[in-house]
Amino acid sequence: MDDLKMIEKALYAYVPSELPFAKALTDSMSYSLEAGGKRIRPRLVLEFSRLCGGDDKAALPFACAIEMIHTFSLIHDDLPCMDDDDMRRGKPSNHKVFGEDIALLAGDALNCLAFEVMSRDDTVAASGADVCIKNINILSSYCGTDGMVGGQIIDLENENKTADLESVTDCDRKKTGALIKAACEMGCVCAGADEEKIAAARLFGENIGIAFQIVDDILDVTSSDEELGKPVGSDIENNKSTYVSLLGIEECKRRVDRLTNEALDALKLFDGETELLKELALSLSTRKN
Amino acid sequence: MDDLKMIEKALYAYVPSELPFAKALTDSMSYSLEAGGKRIRPRLVLEFSRLCGGDDKAALPFACAIEMIHTFSLIHDDLPCMDDDDMRRGKPSNHKVFGEDIALLAGDALNCLAFEVMSRDDTVAASGADVCIKNINILSSYCGTDGMVGGQIIDLENENKTADLESVTDCDRKKTGALIKAACEMGCVCAGADEEKIAAARLFGENIGIAFQIVDDILDVTSSDEELGKPVGSDIENNKSTYVSLLGIEECKRRVDRLTNEALDALKLFDGETELLKELALSLSTRKN
Repeated sequence: MDDLKMIEKALYAYVPSELPFAKALTDSMSYSLEAGGKRIRPRLVLEFSRLCGGDDKAALPFACAIEMIHTFSLIHDDLPCMDDDDMRRGKPSNHKVFGEDIALLAGDALNCLAFEVMSRDDTVAASGADVCIKNINILSSYCGTDGMVGGQIIDLENENKTADLESVTDCDRKKTGALIKAACEMGCVCAGADEEKIAAARLFGENIGIAFQIVDDILDVTSSDEELGKPVGSDIENNKSTYVSLLGIEECKRRVDRLTNEALDALKLFDGETELLKELALSLSTRKN
Repeated sequence: MDDLKMIEKALYAYVPSELPFAKALTDSMSYSLEAGGKRIRPRLVLEFSRLCGGDDKAALPFACAIEMIHTFSLIHDDLPCMDDDDMRRGKPSNHKVFGEDIALLAGDALNCLAFEVMSRDDTVAASGADVCIKNINILSSYCGTDGMVGGQIIDLENENKTADLESVTDCDRKKTGALIKAACEMGCVCAGADEEKIAAARLFGENIGIAFQIVDDILDVTSSDEELGKPVGSDIENNKSTYVSLLGIEECKRRVDRLTNEALDALKLFDGETELLKELALSLSTRKN
């Protein structure tokens, strides 16, 4: 079974199916979990775990947990009081199908489910309590006020004003970068890697996370972005500061190359097979959507 | 220091204060955490921990975590797409002060913070990874699809229709009861109690949770309920089925007495001092607001 299939099979199976009173809730959770996407974060968990000698079966619950957190953030991000997006990945967004109330609760339930999955008996039996608690701490920290949610707040505050490069970078480092870093670190933790390897994985994640976001801004002015379901140039029309508006396209492209190279350099610390991670970093920096 | 002060001091200190870019977020989190309330859930964690011979300092992070989850659920519950409540505990609700977007994110951040607090180094050092992982599992399970959030969905589905007693009870068992049960169980786990004691604590929590909700329905037709910030009789005007509409006030009062007695019976299994828990159970069943 290829990685994508393995991740999706495990991910979908975690949504409880035998709760007759809560069917609208579980349907709404499944709708967004099954809406596709590149599954970058769970793939990073698996790859870094393998690179440090870990076992796929033990790493899989953590790979699924981070995808649940990512999915919850997308559902809440699309709500009318946030970005008010009607479409996500070419399909109606969660609240357009299930209503705002159920979408809100589906996001909350996915947030809780991520932590339940990382703490349940079979996960603890496969990985040990120390690995579980460490990964719970990484994911919850990178998800909260100093991570993903903190980045979303900076994003809200930067709307319709001219933000400087420091603020835009801080926003992206948290909003997008935090979960990508979390995935890389969690994979290493799954395999019991030492601090030096965890730090190298963090550096890899930090660099591809920012590169990913700069590419996003470039694509926003050069093509339609179906993955994000945004109309062409939406941030620009918004008067929102982006890497492109602050640095220009050519400097943005140079930065993407430099960040990608620094990410590839960070992989040199590892002895194992890094081909797939290199491909992933390059595919993110050269993607067309 | 009395329990309330001890809980509130620890609770407020967990909100990060040095994040200049995310000040609106942390202000919004603190606003709702500091809005008062009876702190029933954290007090139950501390009392059951003491009853089983546990240490207050070790139990306190778990007491705070459950109050964070409770607070996040109140913030999201008040949003316009949910109950649309402008007031909470006599003050404007979170989104009326900070806006819907920040209120939504403050709820999300408190949800994550609860799990961060239970997994951070000092918590693990004081309680051990096994206690932490078990409490994380209890809280995340009782919080999700088969617990608090699942109960909120049933509540939404029961609006403006005549629900039967089974559905109303299932709703309350999850929406209100799940976190109260979680608090009782988590307190026992903090002190390393055996399964028999955990089961007795669960039974206590189950009974006072339902009794609490029936009293709520009684108060809703007999007095104003400042704690919940609801106008008198709001559920009745809603055509929503309640214990009172289904059973009548007299039968409701009999059930509250029976449930409270069953809760007190469950405490007989414990050797230690149960006076405060008895008082708590009785104060909930005889409260006037």
